[in-house]
Formats: sequence, C-alpha cells, structure tokens
Amino acid sequence: MSETEFQPTERSTIHRLPSRGIYDKAKVYEVLDQGILAHVGFATKNGPVVIPMGYARRADSVILHGSAKSRLLTYLSQGADVCITVTLVDGLVLARSTFHHSMNYRSVVVFGHSQVITEPSEKDAALEHLVEHLVPGRGADARGADEGELAATLVVEVPISDASLKMRTGPPVDETRDLEIDIWAGVLPLRLETGELIADEHTPADKPVPGYLLDYPAGRS
Amino acid sequence: MSETEFQPTERSTIHRLPSRGIYDKAKVYEVLDQGILAHVGFATKNGPVVIPMGYARRADSVILHGSAKSRLLTYLSQGADVCITVTLVDGLVLARSTFHHSMNYRSVVVFGHSQVITEPSEKDAALEHLVEHLVPGRGADARGADEGELAATLVVEVPISDASLKMRTGPPVDETRDLEIDIWAGVLPLRLETGELIADEHTPADKPVPGYLLDYPAGRS
Repeated sequence: MSETEFQPTERSTIHRLPSRGIYDKAKVYEVLDQGILAHVGFATKNGPVVIPMGYARRADSVILHGSAKSRLLTYLSQGADVCITVTLVDGLVLARSTFHHSMNYRSVVVFGHSQVITEPSEKDAALEHLVEHLVPGRGADARGADEGELAATLVVEVPISDASLKMRTGPPVDETRDLEIDIWAGVLPLRLETGELIADEHTPADKPVPGYLLDYPAGRS
Repeated sequence: MSETEFQPTERSTIHRLPSRGIYDKAKVYEVLDQGILAHVGFATKNGPVVIPMGYARRADSVILHGSAKSRLLTYLSQGADVCITVTLVDGLVLARSTFHHSMNYRSVVVFGHSQVITEPSEKDAALEHLVEHLVPGRGADARGADEGELAATLVVEVPISDASLKMRTGPPVDETRDLEIDIWAGVLPLRLETGELIADEHTPADKPVPGYLLDYPAGRS
C-alpha cells in the first residue's frame, strides 16, 4: 500500500455504489479514531462469528485486547484473519418512497492478520493507548496495569492490510415523479451523546469531575 | 429451541464471564427490536467479512435486504451461514485502575442460515416490516415499492437458529486496595440521540413534521 492510500484488493473493493468507496488513509483513520466500538469477525469451524470489542488504531494497526481466559482472544493471539468493522451512524434518511429510505453513516472495514504482543512493556504501552483512545486524559489519572494484570490480559495487534471507508451523507434522493407526494421528507440526524455522569459510591461527593469527562466529545460511537 | 429460551450451543455459549450470558428469547428480542444497525458477518474465500446493515426481527427470523446488484445480497440469497450482531452502547465504565475500565452495553449475537424471499407479495411485506422497524409509522405515509423496485431488491430471511445476549451494567468494580486512590470513578452514560430534523428542499416550509419523527425514541442504536 502507498503512504496515503490503501490499494483496493478483491475483498476491499466496493462494487455496489463505488462512488461511496473511499481508500484515502487519512479519511479511513479519522473514522477509526472517532469510533469506540468495533465489530470483529472471524471464521470458526462452526461458521462466522462477529463480536463487539473496544479497540484503538495505532499507526497502521488496530489493537484489540481481552482476558487471557477468553476463547476469542486466545484464538486471535494464535494469529487469525480478521475483519474489523467500525460504523458511525449519522442519521435516518426519510424519502418519499420506502424504496429510497436509507441511512447516513460512515463505515470502515479493515482486513488483517492478528499477531500477539507478548513483551510486557509493549503490552503495557498498547493498553495505555487503548485507554487513551477511549477516554483521552484517563491514562494519566488511573492506576496502570501491574504485572499480574498484564499477565491476565491478551493483547493483539492487527496490521491493516486492506481498508476502505463507505459512507452516505445528505438528503434523500427521490424519483422525480414522487416529488409531488404530500409527505415530509429529509433527514433525522442521529449521534451518540453523553448522559449525566454517575459517580460510584466510593467517589467522595465533593470530588470534581475531570475535564476530560465533562468535555467528552459527542458523536463518538 | 424451546418456546422462550434459546438452547446454548457450542458457538453461542458464552464461556467468558458466563453470568453475562442470557438466552431468554424475550430479552434477546428486546435488544434486536431496539437496534437499528446490525453487523453481519460471513465467510468468503478471502476470509471473514463484516458489513453494517439495516435489519428487522420478524417472529423468529431476521430480515435483511439490499440491491439485487449487491455482491453481499447475492451471496446471502444463495443461502449462507451468517452471524448477525447488534450492539447497543450504554456507557463508559471509568474505574480506578486501567485494568477495570469497561463498557456498559447490550449485545445480541444471532446465528442462522439465510434464505431468499422471492414471492413479490412476501418481499413487499418483509420490506414494509423493515421500514416499520426502523421508523414506526413511516410505512403508512411513504409510497410502497412498485413492481420494478421489488425486482431490484433482494430480500433474505435468516431464521434464528442460536442466539444469545451479553451485557454489562452498573458501576465499575475496583480492587479493594484501589478504593483509596483519589480519582473520580463511575459511569459516563452514552446513547444514540436524535438531532434537529432537516427537511429536504422539496418539502414545503409549512409541512408539519409527522409525530412519529418528533417522538422518535432515544436510545435506538
């Protein structure tokens, strides 16, 4: 792959509505960096399985982690082909015909082969990166992983071999003959929003909420 | 499977933190009925692929659809093993140690074998059901699919053979020794919220917004 573009391959090429397919690295990474949840797909002898996971992009890789007791992480740590998909939902597109109803979204599909990170300081760095991706600023506050916790955690890295971004934006696109239909048409925007913070019972009532939580960016999803 | 419970099978059994695994049909369907986006995984000769799709549950099946020109829908219409995962993100769990950071969520994983719906009136009914799932009330307003649109659409049904719900709720669970750490800990709730409706350019300025859009339920995601 080039420095700034992913090379479309047979599996990453977007055939349907190719105008929606984007291989620009900066645009692909922007979506990966905004998302907080990935859906990770892998093959098992009983068929395909898709599991939601926290993740973080680091350079040209995606980092995943989980318990050393997890079947999935054990499988990934042995090296496996995976597909990692991150989708941000931006709105419902309400057309005049049911046929032209749609969704506004940005979705990145990443393909790669997982490899385990075993060296403790590298595992620690990857886990710190994961926390910083999820909640920027939190890593400086919370206690980092100790030796036992590192040993109890499997961390894998998936170098991105192919990736693409598919998106839809804007108003509905109706048939000309339908424009006369007397119906409201347009977009209902959707985005992930934060609710009111809930301190746990061990947090003193006068403990200030850190700024990185008060300002948690809307729209991450 | 029984009337009210899915039978845990080898692939649907939740091994890690089994207390988080729920096979109760009503609880599984509640999540499927709240979600609007599924991540659909399937095997290809080049490895696993995960694609985001609109969907709807109907009785003990999940309905998917797409263009007759879509590679994915063509593949699914020929009958394929699929995994359909729907995840609702409920919040970030901020513990005192990075190790105990987590996410509150509800995630349903469905396994099944897809089968195409070809009979036009059955296709039409399935598509109407999809629109009603996404935007209850819209089906009565919008123009339904005509013969050409039905022919241009592939509709598949995936009878649910196994399914399970995994969820996490509540505050962080910290080590006792960490409770003295002077840091705010708790939950940052997250949920999908609607933004301000955007009428398209063909909608008259005085056209009232339908109630089903004004009252679109928060938290669907």
